[in-house]
Amino acid sequence: MSRTPEQIVREFGQLWEQRDIEGIVQAMTENCVYANVPLPPMRGRDAVRNFITPNLTKADGVEFRFLAIATAADGRTVLTERIDAFLFGDKRVAIPLMGIFVLRGEEIAEWRDYADIGTFVRDMRAIGQMPGPGVAAAG
Amino acid sequence: MSRTPEQIVREFGQLWEQRDIEGIVQAMTENCVYANVPLPPMRGRDAVRNFITPNLTKADGVEFRFLAIATAADGRTVLTERIDAFLFGDKRVAIPLMGIFVLRGEEIAEWRDYADIGTFVRDMRAIGQMPGPGVAAAG
Repeated sequence: MSRTPEQIVREFGQLWEQRDIEGIVQAMTENCVYANVPLPPMRGRDAVRNFITPNLTKADGVEFRFLAIATAADGRTVLTERIDAFLFGDKRVAIPLMGIFVLRGEEIAEWRDYADIGTFVRDMRAIGQMPGPGVAAAG
Repeated sequence: MSRTPEQIVREFGQLWEQRDIEGIVQAMTENCVYANVPLPPMRGRDAVRNFITPNLTKADGVEFRFLAIATAADGRTVLTERIDAFLFGDKRVAIPLMGIFVLRGEEIAEWRDYADIGTFVRDMRAIGQMPGPGVAAAG
């Protein structure tokens, strides 16, 4: 049984909630492009791993909650509205956002998230956390 | 012939490109909720009209370009990836963003856009424009 595009994206969210860094990286194509728009995109699994490792290692919990999800007519582009959250001890930073995933087969070839980055940076700093490599400068 | 949800949203974008303020307002429900997340939502047609009028009046051109569009399984929620732009004389401010539209019949009952608001505020100020009522404070 092959998975639907929406199943693939939902299971990708589960990998985030499990903080499964290698699972996340392997769910993307070797030359994947991942961007927190309008920051410059990261290219390739190593760049993604480097970007996500600090916060996924430090966090005590991660949420990747889908508010809405839909597949475009091309059958490989999935659009989502979500609330992502990072938990550090008794602190929680929630990020309302939308994201788009373009699949190649069952792997994610492109991923773009859209959120108010300044709010995320301020919320992370307010609890003494770093927002992530390359993100802080945008706040 | 009734329009599909995606047609309704695409035609809403055309109203923006025509800078048809009253058309935009009337395309939304009387008690519509419109938000530039995470700013507080506007409620009702008058609030939307007050918010959109300054820039739509001053702009020499508006673009509302769809990069991707998809309808959720509920048949009334449309998710989009877009580049919106405002033109003032020979200056252009482009905003990469995603937005979600929830329809009631053929009217838009909910509209949420997600973008990096700080970048938009800085780009507008850089060409001497105001980002819009309530938006500047977020930058």
